[in-house]
Amino acid sequence: RRARPVREVLFFPSRPCCIEALLAEAAEPGAPARPCPCPLPSGDTALSRLVRRLLSARRSLDLCIFCFSCPQLARAVQLLHRRGVRVRLVTDAQYMGLHGSQIGRLRHAGIQVRHDQDSGYMHHKFAIVDRRMLITGSLNWTTQAIQSNRENVLVVEDAEYVKAFQEEFERIWEEYNPANYTFF
Amino acid sequence: RRARPVREVLFFPSRPCCIEALLAEAAEPGAPARPCPCPLPSGDTALSRLVRRLLSARRSLDLCIFCFSCPQLARAVQLLHRRGVRVRLVTDAQYMGLHGSQIGRLRHAGIQVRHDQDSGYMHHKFAIVDRRMLITGSLNWTTQAIQSNRENVLVVEDAEYVKAFQEEFERIWEEYNPANYTFF
Repeated sequence: RRARPVREVLFFPSRPCCIEALLAEAAEPGAPARPCPCPLPSGDTALSRLVRRLLSARRSLDLCIFCFSCPQLARAVQLLHRRGVRVRLVTDAQYMGLHGSQIGRLRHAGIQVRHDQDSGYMHHKFAIVDRRMLITGSLNWTTQAIQSNRENVLVVEDAEYVKAFQEEFERIWEEYNPANYTFF
Repeated sequence: RRARPVREVLFFPSRPCCIEALLAEAAEPGAPARPCPCPLPSGDTALSRLVRRLLSARRSLDLCIFCFSCPQLARAVQLLHRRGVRVRLVTDAQYMGLHGSQIGRLRHAGIQVRHDQDSGYMHHKFAIVDRRMLITGSLNWTTQAIQSNRENVLVVEDAEYVKAFQEEFERIWEEYNPANYTFF
């Protein structure tokens, strides 16, 4: 029996929250919870819901993220990579080198990253979990956006929408293949 | 008999295109088409599809647009306002005064505009047509984004998603009511 397809809308700003318990449970399912010493509540927030959806990945995570500087989301992505999930990340060339960017850290961890070579921006902010669930909206993966901006994220488990975004991802992934780079 | 609900995904960049015929038909339905002297093709592009969806509004258009500087989209919104559609526009305080912003022009045309007073951004980029169709994604309404960036827009005629965004719109609309402004 299949579960009902996920349909969720998340609005930001999100109250700051501790996601240590979520990460610990994903790293070692069933392990006894260790209380986190940080002062943040670990409630149900837009951020914790987003993290939960990402951590549900079992096989693949395809990411197209314009600006990625949120350490919490980077830890979630790294954890999936360590767990054997195939992570592919596309980002924007002009933004990946900015202060606080998590791209270097993710590359260093062994995650495949590709970027554009255009003057235009790679402005998408979407994720596809297991080629099955689409997570997309206005939200860049930055702490500023999560905690301070009005933002939206749709979570859609719908074959038609997922297919369209998966094809866009594969197009971009090929187009940004370093073998095609031009050097000036 | 109700038409099948709209489900559409638009990817950008869009080829530049002429939308004069679309605007003319919306301004005066059934009037004989006058050929536009501009050199742009008037084909089927992501931009022309977006404009078509907006111009389908009959009663209301609720807009939450972080950065609005595209003259073509501003003309479409103005046309709807002239046609008697109730247009409400929410935008970002820091971006509405930038060079090329269309917000002043839209206000001048009599369209109600509200903006935040926060340091965080009003970063949504969505439209709701007739409280029935949601248009949302990564796309700011700028010519640069339309013609140069990798962007996505979802068009969704789905009561559940529309309701969530309509409620977010009404929350923001009330919160940004000028009666609530604080002056320093």
